[in-house]
Amino acid sequence: MNTPRDKNIGKLFTQLAALKHELYGKDFLLTWEKTEADLRAVMLTAEILQSLHWQGKSMRTFNHGLAISIFRDKSTRTRFSFASAASALGLTLSDLDEEKSQIAHGETVRETANMISFLTEVIGIRDDMYPGEGHTYMLEVAEAVEQGFKDGILPSRPALVNLQCDLDHPTQSLADLLKLKDYFGNLENLKGKKIAMSWAYSPSYGKPLSVPQGIINLMTRFGMEVVLAHPEGYDLLPGTMQTAQQFASASGGSFRLTHDMQDAFKDADVVYPKSWAPMAVMQTRTELLKAGNKQGLVDLEKQCLAENAKHTDWECTEDLMALTKGGNALYEHCLPADITDVSCKQGEVSKSVFDKYRNHTYQEAGFKPFVIAAMIFMSKVADPVRKLESFI
Amino acid sequence: MNTPRDKNIGKLFTQLAALKHELYGKDFLLTWEKTEADLRAVMLTAEILQSLHWQGKSMRTFNHGLAISIFRDKSTRTRFSFASAASALGLTLSDLDEEKSQIAHGETVRETANMISFLTEVIGIRDDMYPGEGHTYMLEVAEAVEQGFKDGILPSRPALVNLQCDLDHPTQSLADLLKLKDYFGNLENLKGKKIAMSWAYSPSYGKPLSVPQGIINLMTRFGMEVVLAHPEGYDLLPGTMQTAQQFASASGGSFRLTHDMQDAFKDADVVYPKSWAPMAVMQTRTELLKAGNKQGLVDLEKQCLAENAKHTDWECTEDLMALTKGGNALYEHCLPADITDVSCKQGEVSKSVFDKYRNHTYQEAGFKPFVIAAMIFMSKVADPVRKLESFI
Amino acid sequence: MNTPRDKNIGKLFTQLAALKHELYGKDFLLTWEKTEADLRAVMLTAEILQSLHWQGKSMRTFNHGLAISIFRDKSTRTRFSFASAASALGLTLSDLDEEKSQIAHGETVRETANMISFLTEVIGIRDDMYPGEGHTYMLEVAEAVEQGFKDGILPSRPALVNLQCDLDHPTQSLADLLKLKDYFGNLENLKGKKIAMSWAYSPSYGKPLSVPQGIINLMTRFGMEVVLAHPEGYDLLPGTMQTAQQFASASGGSFRLTHDMQDAFKDADVVYPKSWAPMAVMQTRTELLKAGNKQGLVDLEKQCLAENAKHTDWECTEDLMALTKGGNALYEHCLPADITDVSCKQGEVSKSVFDKYRNHTYQEAGFKPFVIAAMIFMSKVADPVRKLESFI
Repeated sequence: MNTPRDKNIGKLFTQLAALKHELYGKDFLLTWEKTEADLRAVMLTAEILQSLHWQGKSMRTFNHGLAISIFRDKSTRTRFSFASAASALGLTLSDLDEEKSQIAHGETVRETANMISFLTEVIGIRDDMYPGEGHTYMLEVAEAVEQGFKDGILPSRPALVNLQCDLDHPTQSLADLLKLKDYFGNLENLKGKKIAMSWAYSPSYGKPLSVPQGIINLMTRFGMEVVLAHPEGYDLLPGTMQTAQQFASASGGSFRLTHDMQDAFKDADVVYPKSWAPMAVMQTRTELLKAGNKQGLVDLEKQCLAENAKHTDWECTEDLMALTKGGNALYEHCLPADITDVSCKQGEVSKSVFDKYRNHTYQEAGFKPFVIAAMIFMSKVADPVRKLESFI
Repeated sequence: MNTPRDKNIGKLFTQLAALKHELYGKDFLLTWEKTEADLRAVMLTAEILQSLHWQGKSMRTFNHGLAISIFRDKSTRTRFSFASAASALGLTLSDLDEEKSQIAHGETVRETANMISFLTEVIGIRDDMYPGEGHTYMLEVAEAVEQGFKDGILPSRPALVNLQCDLDHPTQSLADLLKLKDYFGNLENLKGKKIAMSWAYSPSYGKPLSVPQGIINLMTRFGMEVVLAHPEGYDLLPGTMQTAQQFASASGGSFRLTHDMQDAFKDADVVYPKSWAPMAVMQTRTELLKAGNKQGLVDLEKQCLAENAKHTDWECTEDLMALTKGGNALYEHCLPADITDVSCKQGEVSKSVFDKYRNHTYQEAGFKPFVIAAMIFMSKVADPVRKLESFI
Repeated sequence: MNTPRDKNIGKLFTQLAALKHELYGKDFLLTWEKTEADLRAVMLTAEILQSLHWQGKSMRTFNHGLAISIFRDKSTRTRFSFASAASALGLTLSDLDEEKSQIAHGETVRETANMISFLTEVIGIRDDMYPGEGHTYMLEVAEAVEQGFKDGILPSRPALVNLQCDLDHPTQSLADLLKLKDYFGNLENLKGKKIAMSWAYSPSYGKPLSVPQGIINLMTRFGMEVVLAHPEGYDLLPGTMQTAQQFASASGGSFRLTHDMQDAFKDADVVYPKSWAPMAVMQTRTELLKAGNKQGLVDLEKQCLAENAKHTDWECTEDLMALTKGGNALYEHCLPADITDVSCKQGEVSKSVFDKYRNHTYQEAGFKPFVIAAMIFMSKVADPVRKLESFI
């Protein structure tokens, strides 16, 4: 069995050293603002750090300092991924527990961001529930600590890491991509491979759009044939559709939308069936929440679940999988999946399909702590290759 | 004053090196599944680590990694004991805060256990409120990470430490035993000593059975004359009574049940008066909780407290203590005790008795962080004696 | 731009080495119980640690151990300052999350204090809401761990650090004083400088008295002309007024009370406009809380806010600032300030004044983590100068 322990670290170092990335001193908020070299550098670093961990090596990078997490939405796995990354790099985890309903802006954000950052190396933020909010908030925090650093308030500029916003979920999508890299051997092999990023039915509502938006904007950059599938009305944010199209053109891949799950799965090499809420619902929800309209929220949920219920056939079944390339496309999911007859009566994926790919999804998730660690490391370490070599 | 600082570490090392224990790579869930060598090895290691700490020595064992705690019941001292052990070994503490009411099983447990374990060395769990649940849950978690390790998902298998389940409370009972070892000079001196594990009145209900079950199953292994005392109806789980009997036979000690507190205290060398709920009540409570029957729970509590109130004379008083060997048996308690006229109007122990033994109970508790550290250390370190020697 | 990175550390070391302080093995609860040498030593150490941090140096002092925080009132910045200090010194942060309403005393405090301290180096406590309670509680905890140490329960005596009580807020006031030292060049330059510690209007009630009490008792010790200003009825605790008077006499400074904000600001070198609740209100509030009188609390808040509303003119405006020395006194605040038209309709300070001094207030706050670290360090390290030198 090949494990991360057995990776050819020397080769990864050579590749990393050859990249002209611009990660040092920068935040990691959206993959589509990063160069391809940036993305490759994060992935190579993540693989190196993962391999070092499997070999029992230390990757302690900091003498001391805080890694602050701000979770404006519930999380278990990202929370533990961030905690793991902090621990590995030698940072002390500290959670800023805001009132969840409060969407602070302006002076409060500026002040709080500085007040918590006197010995802070990284701030990880999840703020994914409100279209137009999450990324905006992260920019505000970034501007605050940037200014604090310039004004001599802070000794260094804490790096920001997007742990999921309204637009993107880069620590997830890069973990997903690392799984593809691992599964197909290398990134070059992804060219021409078809991935179906498909909506799937779930008996819940209000799931963020950032995973599908992140996937279509990342996989298109590596020459994949990306097909987005969803029932009519479950649109993603228009801007993210446009950038995905541009990336596809630039990379020699392709990007198209279909409202037919079978069409998407046909001959696919990879499928990613996952529920999300229609953008319009999320936007209405944000307005109702801001207005404190509880009855409106109850009505919206009822209406949304009724709409969802029209699409229970959007389930990743054995029959659908049979349509994929050789009948055995790789199944990806950010977890937890809504598994029919397991976590719910009817969900995103059938039990037999999930069981077959469980270990693959676990390995996919296993990249995430190291993706986060790599983002922190590359932002804070001036000479990353030399520092990484010191860990061996 | 003799303190842990002054222990003969050399002697402890010699004893530890001579033991053929099987702790490496194993969980610590129930003392009765462990060999006597295992138990002695954990205690010796705890004593060595405690002595090192009192000497200001480092016992950092890990470069990085998480120590995850899952508390499904409230805790202060065990929580801080676990945090202390994690800190001492160089691990980052991370608490998994589940909804307390939720008793997750199956797929969710399997997935969550793996998702939080990519950089995790130990998972400590308290799940003590529901007969038939706590130990079962721990086995599920253990199986999940075992499978994850075998499948190449996890780089190593996190060790599980039972921080109290429905059956046993091994970190407590081993701390209690270490206190006896310290008090009577060595484990051999415990042979033939009488210990009264007695129910005592408390104005609360629903206290777990794991402490008395743990005590009768641990002290019987070291040749003690163990007397369990409780009013009729306050039975322990039958299986734990049987194993205690077997251990007593094997060790040359004895085990018997009485419904007379005076009988238990007579000529006792050690007394352990402590409240617990009748098994039947705990079982009914579990069913009511699962059914969401709130009125039933209120009724049960009322009925149970009324039953308790018939036994207010089960209090550890000066008069009762006068019956013990020389009138000065050692008083043990896992703390906090319900002290008459202090923490309640009428409780488990009189103020004057508790005052006399306060420092002994504090020292007893003081072993716990090092028992936990020892359990983690012995499970994760392949050559523990050599590693311990490196700390000196 | 001069930053803490550029400080003359050699000079600070020389000054520190010359001080005959008595910080080792002591708690830090009230500045007025400390000698001037103690206060100077804490500040010098804080400056050294801050400079080391800005230079990227390690100040790891402990192999392992816990830094426990007990917050009986909400906190963000002090919480993160304590976490930062713990991380910098190599300690593991652990929060004791009590029920906020519970004011535990006696046996519970004694026992809990010992139970959490077996591997604990410092306990930081915020308990500031109830006159007569916070400091008393800290003394109880201190006595408990002192006794535990003497009785051989604890290997060392955890240091207590007051993170704000009903009487004093020493980590804040020393950060404020360090800002003055930095701004005016040295402590000697503060002699004869006028500071206006003034009440200011805020649309909230129930803010603790410890900041103004702390300021008047600290600045008077360094020869400053301290003027306390507040509307009639907003008295501080009488004892703190008396000690401030005595300190002023001893240092050659002065201390007086006025009910006129303009009088206080006239020719001031420093102004500290900040809201607090009248002592009488806080005392009534404590009684109502203890009695569980919810309606009484609602009525009291209404009455108090109405009283406050009579003094909306107590706002730090440009016009008031024009009265100060050269029209540009330094504005200090412990943050967050209630800023008119920003965080509220009408508050303690106008937007334009706050904007002008924002960076100064941020720098002021930036001393706090290092003041806390210095308090811990000086209490726990027998030979602090030598240890500090080892960090360079």
